[in-house]
Amino acid sequence: MTINIKNFLNDKSKLSKMGEFQNLKQIEGLEMASISADLYSDGRDDVALFYFSKGANYASLYTTNSITSEFIPWNNNSHKKVIKGLLVNTKNANTFTGKQGKDSIDTLAKNLSRILTIKESKSKKGTTETVKIKDLIFASTGVIGEEFPVEKIKERLPDLVEKLRGEQNKMYWLKIASAIMTTDTKPKVAYEEIIVGDELIRICGIAKGSGMIAPNLATMLSFIFTNADINSNLLKTLLKRSVANSFNAISVDSDQSTNDMVTIFSTRTLKIGENLSLNDKVIQKFELALKKLCLNLAKQIVVDGEGAKKFLTISVINAKSLGSAKKIAFSIANSPLVKTAVAGEDPNWGRIIMGIGKSGEVVDPKKLKVKIGEMVVAENGKISDSYNEEKLKEYMQWDSVEFEINLKLGNDAFKCFTCDFTHDYIDINADYRN
Amino acid sequence: MTINIKNFLNDKSKLSKMGEFQNLKQIEGLEMASISADLYSDGRDDVALFYFSKGANYASLYTTNSITSEFIPWNNNSHKKVIKGLLVNTKNANTFTGKQGKDSIDTLAKNLSRILTIKESKSKKGTTETVKIKDLIFASTGVIGEEFPVEKIKERLPDLVEKLRGEQNKMYWLKIASAIMTTDTKPKVAYEEIIVGDELIRICGIAKGSGMIAPNLATMLSFIFTNADINSNLLKTLLKRSVANSFNAISVDSDQSTNDMVTIFSTRTLKIGENLSLNDKVIQKFELALKKLCLNLAKQIVVDGEGAKKFLTISVINAKSLGSAKKIAFSIANSPLVKTAVAGEDPNWGRIIMGIGKSGEVVDPKKLKVKIGEMVVAENGKISDSYNEEKLKEYMQWDSVEFEINLKLGNDAFKCFTCDFTHDYIDINADYRN
Repeated sequence: MTINIKNFLNDKSKLSKMGEFQNLKQIEGLEMASISADLYSDGRDDVALFYFSKGANYASLYTTNSITSEFIPWNNNSHKKVIKGLLVNTKNANTFTGKQGKDSIDTLAKNLSRILTIKESKSKKGTTETVKIKDLIFASTGVIGEEFPVEKIKERLPDLVEKLRGEQNKMYWLKIASAIMTTDTKPKVAYEEIIVGDELIRICGIAKGSGMIAPNLATMLSFIFTNADINSNLLKTLLKRSVANSFNAISVDSDQSTNDMVTIFSTRTLKIGENLSLNDKVIQKFELALKKLCLNLAKQIVVDGEGAKKFLTISVINAKSLGSAKKIAFSIANSPLVKTAVAGEDPNWGRIIMGIGKSGEVVDPKKLKVKIGEMVVAENGKISDSYNEEKLKEYMQWDSVEFEINLKLGNDAFKCFTCDFTHDYIDINADYRN
Repeated sequence: MTINIKNFLNDKSKLSKMGEFQNLKQIEGLEMASISADLYSDGRDDVALFYFSKGANYASLYTTNSITSEFIPWNNNSHKKVIKGLLVNTKNANTFTGKQGKDSIDTLAKNLSRILTIKESKSKKGTTETVKIKDLIFASTGVIGEEFPVEKIKERLPDLVEKLRGEQNKMYWLKIASAIMTTDTKPKVAYEEIIVGDELIRICGIAKGSGMIAPNLATMLSFIFTNADINSNLLKTLLKRSVANSFNAISVDSDQSTNDMVTIFSTRTLKIGENLSLNDKVIQKFELALKKLCLNLAKQIVVDGEGAKKFLTISVINAKSLGSAKKIAFSIANSPLVKTAVAGEDPNWGRIIMGIGKSGEVVDPKKLKVKIGEMVVAENGKISDSYNEEKLKEYMQWDSVEFEINLKLGNDAFKCFTCDFTHDYIDINADYRN
């Protein structure tokens, strides 16, 4: 997205400025590497490995698409509370690949566990521990239905493990974040830290998406790492709460990948307390930081949406329920008519009204108040008396625009984020596989 | 739509060939006229009147958008089983127009009923009947939220009534069908007839849509007229059954207008029997003809979809329920990724798989069989052994393509119709109000 951030300040949250990446730091207990398995035939890194020398607690959320990558049931069947590694490949989704896809996972898991066991026996002399196949989880993104390139990836596993590195600086994080990209135009990284006494809790996150659905349905992947020792159950709760208003509040084109996956890992290297719960201050701070980090990554995905030229925030307030607010917000966000009007910088608020009604939610048109930016465009069941088309047109030229729908029916609210629909979206997606 | 009907025969139903309109005939008891009320400022006819000299039975179906044109509650509150007229205007939707919009309807209804009463007293000397305001219904299509141009329309009512004409030939029907257009590129008309003994039941239908949602959310309007005397309750049942697999089986961009309306009128001039029900042979024949006519009009709307270059049929078979089949069909039809792939002539069947899964319906990937045209692309949970990319690419160049999803879970089926997503769609909708 070649966005000219004329006024990204208009968007009140702290989206990291484009071109300026945050300074991600090292997470003790994490080793990372990426490599080219020649999946793209152009030398770029297309496989990444995350290895936890002392194991990691983790929690994962997956796509709700009823057809999924073969990797997703594998991960779900792991039942391990502590794992040793995550392998990510791009280019091929391993979805609708049948037996060949399933067998490929066995092959990869067996080979990788063997190689990692050798690595461990070398570094921890005298250990008898082995890395089991169920200590490994997988993520992938790419084309659906094509044979999974298991041999190409398998061949590169020894070198990939060889390259694992426990020291991570900003540039190394960007390298790894780039290795999981598909049609993304830039890597997506985010960082938060929390001071607890003399210690520093670190949270590093990377993501890919390019439109929630770009490549062959732009899978959204995000992997988050922290040194704070938090158990897997609590991680799951924290992740769910953070995803609700970030990754689950974005939409590029309403389509949903078969491979979407967000996972948080704790390397358990920093002890922050025993029997922690949501009521503990340190966890509350952690939750705030995690929410901020997830929202940051989610917004980067929208900004990098396929062909996107504008960032659009849709805020529904005073709804009778959260579900209702959400339904209305997404009904507007997913309307091609709204998104093309935004691309055309047309303050066509009639389409917002249509989007509200189309949601199927009961609203009271007489109570409804619609704002574009700070300007009221409709209230009392009709166009606002202060409606000023000239000013609105000027506002619509901004790179980031906001619609606020005040339903005046209750106390619930939901905010979602999307981008406009442009010629480039058609170009990218009409020619995707060529 | 400048469709080059390379192979419209591929679509098995008898869509009237573009450029060749059916020969609509006269419906006794119906008078029609159209006029320019200068709503478009270019002299085109933009208001149409349908008048039933002896009254008409009728049945109407309206948008399910929870925000509607002011005309829709008016029509719903009529409670008349026999009406005298329908007035249709374009350019302004009379939606979100508040009190001004409501008052406008009173003004129009009062004026039109007065003028029609005078007309009746002239033609039927000595009559004391009057046309009441509640004998009139209305339809409109156009921009939302702008002041309703009641004065402009009111001024033209006397001339409009003066122009009413009881003789209708093909050209006159095209004139009237053109008067209700907005961004449509051509009028939509359809005709069916049924021989009953020595008599001829005629059904004439017109529609506008240009994408179900074209102009300022392309309202879909359709008006159907028959001479056969069928009571309003039975008309309602027949209309519902016909709309289910025609107007309710099309989608251009998943958006839904605040003004959609389909109405059937019976001028009651041809008696076809007493106490008719769905079990009567004549009604069964009528239903078949009505379904054919509705499907014909619905397909014309899709073909004229904004920017559409290709006609797409999505057929879901062997579903566990009708609801499930419908949800899956529309999930695919409304996917921007599927529609852009079709525009790019890319047989990207992975996106069809994604669309199936996204519906939220439970399917069994191992049973699933997907066909593009006559070619099986996926079965047994993986790409088909007979998959031939070259042949598929050739097929995708056709103007009309069909996807068949065989779920092998039950006996229900649903077929829906849509078009591709092209640059022109973005152009038309980004600049719509300019």
